[in-house]
Amino acid sequence: MNCMALCYGDDIIVLDAGMMFPDDELLGVDSVIPDWSWLEERREHVRALFLTHGHEDHIGAVPFFISEFAVPVYGTAFTLALSERKLDEHDLMSEAKLNVVEYNQVIEAGPFKVEFIRVTHSIVQAAALAITTPLGVVVHTGDFKVDPTPTDNQLFDLHSFAEYGKRGVLLLMSDSTNADRPGYTPSERAVRPRLEEIIARAEHRVVVSSFSTSIHRMQQIIDLSHEYGRKVGLLGRSMLEVTEIAHNLGKLSIPDNLLLRPQDIMSVARSKVTVMLSGTQGEPMSAMSRVAVDNHRQFSVSPGDTVVLSARMIPGNEKAIYRMINHYARRGVELVYGNMTPPVHVSGHASAEECKLLLNLLRPKYFLPIHGEYRQMSIHASHAQHMRVNGVEESFILETGDTLEIDKRGARKGAKVQVGRVCIDSGSIDEFVDDIVIRDRRHLSEDGFVLPIIAINKHSGKAEGLPEIVSRGFMSKMENGADLMQGARQVVAKTLESSSPEERGDWGVMQEKIRADLKRYISKQTSRRPLIMPVILEV
Amino acid sequence: MNCMALCYGDDIIVLDAGMMFPDDELLGVDSVIPDWSWLEERREHVRALFLTHGHEDHIGAVPFFISEFAVPVYGTAFTLALSERKLDEHDLMSEAKLNVVEYNQVIEAGPFKVEFIRVTHSIVQAAALAITTPLGVVVHTGDFKVDPTPTDNQLFDLHSFAEYGKRGVLLLMSDSTNADRPGYTPSERAVRPRLEEIIARAEHRVVVSSFSTSIHRMQQIIDLSHEYGRKVGLLGRSMLEVTEIAHNLGKLSIPDNLLLRPQDIMSVARSKVTVMLSGTQGEPMSAMSRVAVDNHRQFSVSPGDTVVLSARMIPGNEKAIYRMINHYARRGVELVYGNMTPPVHVSGHASAEECKLLLNLLRPKYFLPIHGEYRQMSIHASHAQHMRVNGVEESFILETGDTLEIDKRGARKGAKVQVGRVCIDSGSIDEFVDDIVIRDRRHLSEDGFVLPIIAINKHSGKAEGLPEIVSRGFMSKMENGADLMQGARQVVAKTLESSSPEERGDWGVMQEKIRADLKRYISKQTSRRPLIMPVILEV
Repeated sequence: MNCMALCYGDDIIVLDAGMMFPDDELLGVDSVIPDWSWLEERREHVRALFLTHGHEDHIGAVPFFISEFAVPVYGTAFTLALSERKLDEHDLMSEAKLNVVEYNQVIEAGPFKVEFIRVTHSIVQAAALAITTPLGVVVHTGDFKVDPTPTDNQLFDLHSFAEYGKRGVLLLMSDSTNADRPGYTPSERAVRPRLEEIIARAEHRVVVSSFSTSIHRMQQIIDLSHEYGRKVGLLGRSMLEVTEIAHNLGKLSIPDNLLLRPQDIMSVARSKVTVMLSGTQGEPMSAMSRVAVDNHRQFSVSPGDTVVLSARMIPGNEKAIYRMINHYARRGVELVYGNMTPPVHVSGHASAEECKLLLNLLRPKYFLPIHGEYRQMSIHASHAQHMRVNGVEESFILETGDTLEIDKRGARKGAKVQVGRVCIDSGSIDEFVDDIVIRDRRHLSEDGFVLPIIAINKHSGKAEGLPEIVSRGFMSKMENGADLMQGARQVVAKTLESSSPEERGDWGVMQEKIRADLKRYISKQTSRRPLIMPVILEV
Repeated sequence: MNCMALCYGDDIIVLDAGMMFPDDELLGVDSVIPDWSWLEERREHVRALFLTHGHEDHIGAVPFFISEFAVPVYGTAFTLALSERKLDEHDLMSEAKLNVVEYNQVIEAGPFKVEFIRVTHSIVQAAALAITTPLGVVVHTGDFKVDPTPTDNQLFDLHSFAEYGKRGVLLLMSDSTNADRPGYTPSERAVRPRLEEIIARAEHRVVVSSFSTSIHRMQQIIDLSHEYGRKVGLLGRSMLEVTEIAHNLGKLSIPDNLLLRPQDIMSVARSKVTVMLSGTQGEPMSAMSRVAVDNHRQFSVSPGDTVVLSARMIPGNEKAIYRMINHYARRGVELVYGNMTPPVHVSGHASAEECKLLLNLLRPKYFLPIHGEYRQMSIHASHAQHMRVNGVEESFILETGDTLEIDKRGARKGAKVQVGRVCIDSGSIDEFVDDIVIRDRRHLSEDGFVLPIIAINKHSGKAEGLPEIVSRGFMSKMENGADLMQGARQVVAKTLESSSPEERGDWGVMQEKIRADLKRYISKQTSRRPLIMPVILEV
């Protein structure tokens, strides 16, 4: 969830507002966005939001940002079109002040002058930001690779970077995702030979899953299908919506009569169709996953079809993806996925040599690797250290919440600020989930709960009958749960009896005593540690 | 959790008894073993358990098996020594009838004659089983690769396989783990150049994590450390125990005075020590993970040390492993992990060409790919189909619970049998976890629970006061949980009031009505779906 604040004096601009998909440890949470408390305290000084490109980890939190900060938003046409789609979902379009920016246009926001510079990446219209401040120029690369032969011939703008480099750059912040890979990332064109081989040779259907925002990839598949006499069907909501956006903006060219309506795909001869699906990461509700288990309304695969995964596996998703691939294997299709030469997928991020090229072009005084795990940022910083003689005075590695302060005397790490994550349950703006709730869910997920319930007569102050105990997710009847519960009731009854009248007058004390005694009993009998929550009911 | 039953007439032998580590979906479960209901119904016909090698996924369930079936267990010395270690943990050594088998020894069990054949694998003393039955020979490869230059010079026994192939094999069951990788798996010796480069060049400590059962790998690291004047420290319980077992059996040779006691590692000069740690998969309590966060009692790393991960990342563990690697990066160490040439890790499983070599040697009539995901078994089966002219009549792909029947008329898939998994909570034999309990835990983990508690006067049959509602893992106070709870109490009260005296006389009906009304209310207000469990208390 990329999000960075750049401050000069009191003035603040924000660079990107991304979301992330929660990992398994955030139980029941649908998405995670940045905690903006620090920005909220400085609300009146926030001047603008700048977006580098349209991937979820850079624009996914835009609706949440807009609902908090009523500032103008700047980005390229495609980036803003994808943001609009998200704002629409949240009914926030009327509140948003979106401003389309052209490459090399300069936007003023407070003391900042921000120029958008064209970079190449796995999405169209990605931009780096060259931000002129009274103290010097700060360059933020956004996500990039240096593709010398992009499929749309929109070249990486080396010249603008060179110009800034010549004039002097105070700070470079550069994409580190692949800084640990040696050499150069292959051009997007490198996937064409493999895709051509597949589409030309396949006897039956070709089914390709790629990221729905990979417009370059989609263009190549559309072109090759057209060349080899195949119609193209698109399935999956994001695939259909993003394609339409790209087409309307002239970023995706589709020959007339090439596209099939989803409901027509199955009626075309199997050798005459390519189908593109969203769901590369094995997301359970995606078109790709549903076809895998033959549970898609409009499409199914048959033995002899070729199924291609033209995307990387995001770490953490491997199991879900392989499960999906196994389902396709059960359907008898030919499978193409993983690393191979020539490749069926190439990355959109710069490898080590491209990172060094940027450092050479920009010759920054200070360097800050961004966008990557620590291990990648640390290798990126060591690339920069090798360039000390060429001008890089110092590199810093910052983690979430760290700050970097630069003034006339130099640069240094500043104090940490309050940041963090906000967990969203259902996609709606209000429904954030408290960390305590997630902690409880984790506890419940491991050993369930045990609730002793004691009815106390409000006149006599005495317990009415034996305590009741209910539990779930702890032990079933088959596991002798019943015997254990009987024992637990006796434990609670004994705790009640052995307490003094003063203790019994204080419910808080009694709850704590019951919890402690019951915990000891259950742990001794079962070595499990359910959530124990005594309830005292006044009757 | 590999486990297979081979039956002739009524007689049964069992091949391997493995466990698996649960995935994230099995909340709070520690380990998973096979469900042996089918075998239990045929208890008196079970003749023996044969173990191919000592990896957890082949021997991990041996203690659970032994406690159910009092039959002899056969395996090589190292395999049984590792099994003993597990039996000791469960205090089951007195019940176990372990029989050490030499290679090419033949064990009789009922109508079966089982010969152990030496194969090469990432663990020492791995075996294939050639099982002569009255109907023909069944060969089970166990896990293998064909390593032409194993570090201990104990060669893959091509000759025995050739002999069986000449005489005729009815059924081959062969390891499919890497059947989808083209070419040959490199020899274990292929890691030596990389390890030598690291150990020779490192200025400070070399820290290596590999699987504790990778005795060949350990031997190479010990030899190289000795050669380059480094002492060797071992950390982690499994690393220490397995090393001792291998050393006692003469499978690991350690020069005198080379090993350091754990408490002495930090007092040796940094350039004179290699440390081997268990915990390649980022397991939270492992030595490797604890050192990563500087939380190990006897050892810590410093900037300039070299940390090497000499193991593969098991799919599903990537996130935990990368998190651990990031912690090491924060400590300023040099990191070596992942794919590289020459490799720092090689697989122990046969690639496509080795799989085909086995098919060529054995020329089985029927072929059954085993040990792999469906996608790998299906590719392995297609390798065998290409060999039809050489005698493979038919290949079958079986999944858990499937059976294969062979008689004089031929081979065919049989009826499915009842199998499944048994979830173990704490490692003890009794503590299996019911599937219902796991389902509840999953539900609890997503949205927590809401418990309406109603006290009913047993004389009047009427509710005493307003119902109480307790919840956890659902909404916190910050999220307006209090307002919602107040509303929920009104809903329950209304349900109670609007019910007829007959309904109120039937607690089951009342619980269901309350659950339904409350579910509707909560879902409308929050779109969450907590576990709702009405409790009626008679007072």
